[in-house]
Amino acid sequence: MSRKRIVILGHMDKPGVAEQIERLHPWLAERAEVLAVSPANRPLADEARAADLCVVFGGDGTLLAAARALAETGIPLLGVNLGKLGFLAEFTVEQMQQHFADILAGRVKPTERMMLKAQVANCESHTLSATAVNDVAIHAGPPHRMIDLVVAHGGRRVSQYLGDGLVVSTPTGSTAHNLSLGGPILHPTLDAIVITPVGPHTLSLRPIVLSSDKPITITASRVNAGSDVSIDGQAATGLCDGDIVQITRADRTVRIISCPGRSFFDTLTDKLHWGRGPEYYNKDNPLA
Amino acid sequence: MSRKRIVILGHMDKPGVAEQIERLHPWLAERAEVLAVSPANRPLADEARAADLCVVFGGDGTLLAAARALAETGIPLLGVNLGKLGFLAEFTVEQMQQHFADILAGRVKPTERMMLKAQVANCESHTLSATAVNDVAIHAGPPHRMIDLVVAHGGRRVSQYLGDGLVVSTPTGSTAHNLSLGGPILHPTLDAIVITPVGPHTLSLRPIVLSSDKPITITASRVNAGSDVSIDGQAATGLCDGDIVQITRADRTVRIISCPGRSFFDTLTDKLHWGRGPEYYNKDNPLA
Amino acid sequence: MSRKRIVILGHMDKPGVAEQIERLHPWLAERAEVLAVSPANRPLADEARAADLCVVFGGDGTLLAAARALAETGIPLLGVNLGKLGFLAEFTVEQMQQHFADILAGRVKPTERMMLKAQVANCESHTLSATAVNDVAIHAGPPHRMIDLVVAHGGRRVSQYLGDGLVVSTPTGSTAHNLSLGGPILHPTLDAIVITPVGPHTLSLRPIVLSSDKPITITASRVNAGSDVSIDGQAATGLCDGDIVQITRADRTVRIISCPGRSFFDTLTDKLHWGRGPEYYNKDNPLA
Amino acid sequence: MSRKRIVILGHMDKPGVAEQIERLHPWLAERAEVLAVSPANRPLADEARAADLCVVFGGDGTLLAAARALAETGIPLLGVNLGKLGFLAEFTVEQMQQHFADILAGRVKPTERMMLKAQVANCESHTLSATAVNDVAIHAGPPHRMIDLVVAHGGRRVSQYLGDGLVVSTPTGSTAHNLSLGGPILHPTLDAIVITPVGPHTLSLRPIVLSSDKPITITASRVNAGSDVSIDGQAATGLCDGDIVQITRADRTVRIISCPGRSFFDTLTDKLHWGRGPEYYNKDNPLA
Repeated sequence: MSRKRIVILGHMDKPGVAEQIERLHPWLAERAEVLAVSPANRPLADEARAADLCVVFGGDGTLLAAARALAETGIPLLGVNLGKLGFLAEFTVEQMQQHFADILAGRVKPTERMMLKAQVANCESHTLSATAVNDVAIHAGPPHRMIDLVVAHGGRRVSQYLGDGLVVSTPTGSTAHNLSLGGPILHPTLDAIVITPVGPHTLSLRPIVLSSDKPITITASRVNAGSDVSIDGQAATGLCDGDIVQITRADRTVRIISCPGRSFFDTLTDKLHWGRGPEYYNKDNPLA
Repeated sequence: MSRKRIVILGHMDKPGVAEQIERLHPWLAERAEVLAVSPANRPLADEARAADLCVVFGGDGTLLAAARALAETGIPLLGVNLGKLGFLAEFTVEQMQQHFADILAGRVKPTERMMLKAQVANCESHTLSATAVNDVAIHAGPPHRMIDLVVAHGGRRVSQYLGDGLVVSTPTGSTAHNLSLGGPILHPTLDAIVITPVGPHTLSLRPIVLSSDKPITITASRVNAGSDVSIDGQAATGLCDGDIVQITRADRTVRIISCPGRSFFDTLTDKLHWGRGPEYYNKDNPLA
Repeated sequence: MSRKRIVILGHMDKPGVAEQIERLHPWLAERAEVLAVSPANRPLADEARAADLCVVFGGDGTLLAAARALAETGIPLLGVNLGKLGFLAEFTVEQMQQHFADILAGRVKPTERMMLKAQVANCESHTLSATAVNDVAIHAGPPHRMIDLVVAHGGRRVSQYLGDGLVVSTPTGSTAHNLSLGGPILHPTLDAIVITPVGPHTLSLRPIVLSSDKPITITASRVNAGSDVSIDGQAATGLCDGDIVQITRADRTVRIISCPGRSFFDTLTDKLHWGRGPEYYNKDNPLA
Repeated sequence: MSRKRIVILGHMDKPGVAEQIERLHPWLAERAEVLAVSPANRPLADEARAADLCVVFGGDGTLLAAARALAETGIPLLGVNLGKLGFLAEFTVEQMQQHFADILAGRVKPTERMMLKAQVANCESHTLSATAVNDVAIHAGPPHRMIDLVVAHGGRRVSQYLGDGLVVSTPTGSTAHNLSLGGPILHPTLDAIVITPVGPHTLSLRPIVLSSDKPITITASRVNAGSDVSIDGQAATGLCDGDIVQITRADRTVRIISCPGRSFFDTLTDKLHWGRGPEYYNKDNPLA
C-alpha cells in the first residue's frame, strides 16, 4: 500500500500552536508523508492539494479558515484543538494520536458538511463570490435604520425581513451565530438551511428551516450606508439598495473527521452545558 | 374514464358546517360519486376507503382528525375552511369549486406530509399506539414538579430534558404548538423532526432539528402523577417513571391538496401577519 | 444586651440535613437561644414566632417553604445550602459561621422580597388564599386544548392570553419558572411583577413587566377539565370557566439575609454560568 | 385666564405633513397663541421655549426627535399621527381636536417618561453626551468579530457581554428595538431600565430589568474597528477598546399627553395584534 500524504495547517500566530506543530511533526512524518506545513488562512500550495488528509491545529475558527481554503479539494480535515473542545476541532492531541492509524487507513468515515455559495448581483460596486461553511449574514450597520430585505426561496417570495438583518446558516453553522440569535440547532447530516432574522420588526417572523436544493435570493430593498455581508462571521462586501444576494448549496462539501465514539450530541452536551446545568432557581419544592 | 369517487367529512357539531355540506352535496354529487358523508372524527366506513378524494369541511382541527382517520388509506385530503384560512384547510368554497375539476382529474399534485407513530413501552398501565400529523407532546402536569426525561435519537443520547416537558413535531406541526413554544418553522417538504423543550431548566437547551429516519426514544426518568402524553394536542395516555415513549416516522404519509398558485409562504404571511406587521414601535427616526 | 432567639428549620427528609442540624445545634445554641428545631414545611409553633432569626438548612425549595410558613412573622431568613449554591440559600456552613455574629447583631441588613397574595373568586368548588414567594401560575392541563384567559391590571384589560397558560412572578421568582419560559430577570429590589405567557397562540404576546401596586385579575374565560393554579410550583387548586384569580402584592415581605460581599449578579454569574460560557461555536475567525 | 401658547413641530419632509399643518394652523391659532412652527429635528428657537404645549405632527420617529429637542424645557408633547397609530403619537387629528380644549386647560395629565443620559469616557477620539428617549445601543459592527463588553450597575459587575452588542432601554423604548431582540415590555410608569443582549455568546445571558437610580457603566473591553453607539436608533459615536459608556437616568423627563380613555394596553393590543391574532395553526381539535 502506498504511503499516505498529509498537510498540516495551523493558526501560527496563536500562542503555542507553532510549537505544538513542531513537536508533533516528527510523529506525523513517521506515519505519513508531510506535503506541507502552512498557516490555515493562506491559499493552499499546489503540491499540497494531492494530500489524503489535512491535520489542522487550532480552534474552530482555524478549522473554518482551513475548510474554506480547501473547499475545492475534497481533502478530509481532522481538527486538533489545543485548548478547549470545539464543534469542529473535536480531537485532543492524544485522541488524534490514538486514532491516527485508523483515520489514515480510511477506517473513520468523515461526515460531509454542506457549504453555501454566496454571490452578489445587480451591482457594480459590490462583488462577492464566496464559500461559507457556517453562514452568510446581512447586517444593517450604521446609521442603524432598520433595513428592508425581501427573501425568496426557489423563486417564491418567503417574506419581507424588516429589521437589523438576517443570518442564513448551514447545519454546521446552526450552532454558531444562528444559535445566539435564537435559531434552532440542525443536526449536521441534514440537507437543510435555516434563515434567522436579527431584530425583526415583525415579532412573528421566526427562524425558518428550508430545503437546501433551491436558491435563496435576498433583495436589498432598502439598506443603510454601512450595511454589509459577512461570510462565516467576517466582513466580505458592502451592500446597496437593489443588490441581490444569492445563496445556493455549494457543489463541494467539506469533509470533517469526527472523533470515533463521540456523537454530535456529546459535543452539544459539553459545549452548551446540557444535562448538568446551567441552572436557574429550582422551582420544585422538595418538601411537598 | 371512470367516474371518481369522493367522501365528504365535516365537523358536524360546528355551527353551519352541516348546512354547508347539505348545500354543496348536489354540486359535488354532479361531479363525482359520493361514497359517504360522515363526521371527521369517526373511523371511516369500509366502503368509503375506496375513495379517490376526501373533501373535508371545517378548520385545521377537523382536517387533523380526518387525516388521522384516513391515515392507512392514502386518500388525498382537500380542506375547505368555512371561516378563516387554515394552515391545512386552505380552500375557500369558491376556490374548491374553481379547482375541483383539476383536482379530480389528478392535475393538482398533493403534497406528502410526514406523520409520526408514537408508542409507549415498559408499562402495563399505559398503552399507546397512535399516529400524529402535528406532534407528540409530554406534559409535566400536576403537581407541577419539573419532570426529567432522557431523549435519544437513533440510540444515541441527545440530552436530559428537565423542565415542563417537550414537543416532538413534524414539519406540518412546526407551525402549531411548536411555534408557540419558540420552535422554528420547518418547510412541509423537509424530512425532519423538531424537538422543542417546554420550560427547560437548562437555558441553553434549544429546539433541535433531527432527521426523521431514526427513532426518537424518550425515557421518563422521573415524572409526576399527572404527567401525560398528547397526540396532536389531545390527551392520549398517562405516563409513569420508567415509561419509554418511542416516536418514529409513520410508514404512510398524509396527502394534502394545496390550493393551486398558493405557496406555504403565502399561508405563513397571511396567518402570521408577515410583511405587514405586527408592528412594534418604529425605532427609525425619519428625520435623520 | 439580651440574648437573641433563633429557630432552626430544615428539609428533614433530605439525606444529611438532620445530621447537619444535629451537628451544628450546639454551635448555634452557644450563640443564641434556640426556640425550636422543626421541618420547614410545617406551620411554625407559636413559641417560635418570637424568634429574631430563622436559620434554614436545605436548598431554595426548603427556603421557599420556610418563607411561606413565616410569612406573617417578619422573621428574617438565613438560608444555608448543604450542596450547591441557591438563589435564596446563599450561605455555605462556613459562611454562615463566619458571618453569624454580625447577622445576629443586626449588622447585616436583610433584603425585603415582595410576595404575592393569590385568591380565587366566583366559584364554589375552588377556593384559594395563598401567599407566593416566587410565582402564581395557571396551567392548561388535560385534555390540553388551549385555554383562554383575560388579564387585567388595575382594572384595565391587558390582553387575552390564549395558549397553555401564564406565570405571574415576583422579582424573586423571575429567576425560577419565569426564566425557563423566556421571561426576563428582575432585580430583587424592584417593585414590579412580570407576566409571562406559556405557549401563546399570539406570537407577539411577550412578557410584560408591571407595577405591583395594582391588582392583577385573571378571568378564566375557557379552561380545561384539568386546568389548575400553582403557587411556587406546587398545585394549589383547580379552575373552571368563569373563575377569577386575583393577584395582589402581599402586605408582608419576606426578609432574606444575603451573604455579605455577595451581589445578586454574583449569584446569577454562578448559577447561569455567565461570563464563562456556556459556549456556542466561536464564530470569530482568529486568523482574519 | 391668560391665553395658552403652543409650538407646532412636524416632520416637514414627509409627504402631506406640511399640508396638514397648514390646514390645521388656523384651527389651532384660534384656540392658542402659536409661538413657532418648526421642523421637529431642529433645536427649538428661544422664543418657543416658553410654550405650554407642543403639538407634533408625524409618527413616533418625529415625536422622538421632538422629545430630544425639547428635553430641557419640560413642555408636554401631544403627538398627532397622520397615518397609523404610534406608541407615542397616539392621537388622530380628530381626537386631537376633540380633546384639545381639555388638554390646553390642563385637564389631561401628561405621563412622565424617563429618559437616559449617555456619556463616553476614557477616550479622546469619541465623545458623547446625549439624551435618549428610547434606548442606547452598542453595535459590534464590521468586521463582525464578537465584541466583549463588561457591564456594571451601581458599581457592581453584572456580567461580561460577549456577542453582537447590547441595548439599554427605558420603559418607553422597551416596545421598540428591545422588543424585537426578545426583551420584555415595561409599563411606561415603571422606574426601571432593561438591558438586552444582542446575539449573546452565552445562551443564558437573558434580558435583565434593573432599577434606574444607579448608573450603568459599560466598559468596551474588546471592540471592532466599526463598533459604535447609537441613541434612539441613530448612530452617535464610534467606540474603541477601553472606552466606557456611562448611562444614567436623565434629570428631566419627557412629558407625553396620552389620548384620554386609551390605555397603554390598548395601544399594545392595536400595534402588536394582541387578542385578535396573529394566529398560528390551531392545535386544538374541536372534534375531541
